[in-house]
Amino acid sequence: MYGKEITVADREMVEERADQMLREAADADVAFLVVGDPFGATTHTDLVVRAKNMGVEVKVIHNASVMNAVGVCGLQLYRYGETISIPFFTETWRPDSFYEKIQNNRRLGLHTLCLLDIRVKEPTLESLCRGKKVYEPPRFMSVNTAISQLLEVEELCGGSAYGADSLCIGVARLGSDDQKIVAGPMKKLLDVDFGPPLHCLIIVGETHPVEEEMIEFHMIKS
Amino acid sequence: MYGKEITVADREMVEERADQMLREAADADVAFLVVGDPFGATTHTDLVVRAKNMGVEVKVIHNASVMNAVGVCGLQLYRYGETISIPFFTETWRPDSFYEKIQNNRRLGLHTLCLLDIRVKEPTLESLCRGKKVYEPPRFMSVNTAISQLLEVEELCGGSAYGADSLCIGVARLGSDDQKIVAGPMKKLLDVDFGPPLHCLIIVGETHPVEEEMIEFHMIKS
Repeated sequence: MYGKEITVADREMVEERADQMLREAADADVAFLVVGDPFGATTHTDLVVRAKNMGVEVKVIHNASVMNAVGVCGLQLYRYGETISIPFFTETWRPDSFYEKIQNNRRLGLHTLCLLDIRVKEPTLESLCRGKKVYEPPRFMSVNTAISQLLEVEELCGGSAYGADSLCIGVARLGSDDQKIVAGPMKKLLDVDFGPPLHCLIIVGETHPVEEEMIEFHMIKS
Repeated sequence: MYGKEITVADREMVEERADQMLREAADADVAFLVVGDPFGATTHTDLVVRAKNMGVEVKVIHNASVMNAVGVCGLQLYRYGETISIPFFTETWRPDSFYEKIQNNRRLGLHTLCLLDIRVKEPTLESLCRGKKVYEPPRFMSVNTAISQLLEVEELCGGSAYGADSLCIGVARLGSDDQKIVAGPMKKLLDVDFGPPLHCLIIVGETHPVEEEMIEFHMIKS
């Protein structure tokens, strides 16, 4: 049993209030709840390192994560390559470091899980200048935006890692009762309304017959 | 709520009694519990395909899996390449198809999760010949056996994918109170007693500072 429970986990808490958590953990039990498995993100690994360095014992209770729950779409988990993250492009910042990773996965016939950007508690640039934080409304990248950015990057890089006809699977609200899974070529998924967040996207690699049967259940009607 | 619960899941049940489960599911709720996440194995995907083809609605409740719980050893989940399985070698069957996959992961600087063979309810060859099944005692591959087989394959293939000095992390009983995690070069882990099953092994790729700090907690004393 845990003596104290901290039940709200967000990035602000981990990054700005870790000191407080660790201080309290020195002489009490502190529970820290997160969405998904705690080790999907470096932030939590860092928290464990700091706790251990302070001599605080850490006990981890694992949970389902997008990294394994994505198996529900029918592609075998052991046929995925490196997972990538797609950040929101801005006018001036359009990073494409994920492109080479997708290309490597595709060359090996592996599937690519694309985690899509989540922007919560982002201070506005204006408020940062003024020194008093005002937050932007939360934004969650949709499958549509992700594909649109992917196609833009393919056009720029020109490595034929994938294209408008590449088979993908868009997944929304994975694990919830109203989850939505739609498979189809990128160009067709561009127009599918996946509804509320969270979304993720899989770029399909080489498939086996059992995988194909599962994909068929989710295939977009043409 | 589920009307009928089938609480024991083993390979025999899925493979030999799937028909019975599906038949009962036609007019009743049937729950099927598995260890880990249901989509770690093709067997369960196939069960879902068959159910859907029969018009049986399938609801999946996800769970932690070795595929994400392995994050506890400190290596970032999105820095893993393709997962491999290492089967028990026999006198006449010494497959090495995993070698090329490890090599590909290492070239990309990625970590490799090695799932180790589990042999339960394996009929003896003799009993198969006689037509009446007698089962061999269960066997679970240890980290030590896995490394020994890996080194044998490296010697045969000679591709320098890894070697006796390659950094690995052996994990036993992941997620349980007495889990054991030891990091070190392959040759040193060969002699570590990891205790009872289940074991798995990670061949470490390129590491980042936060990963290195975590590995340090588990590093074998020389």
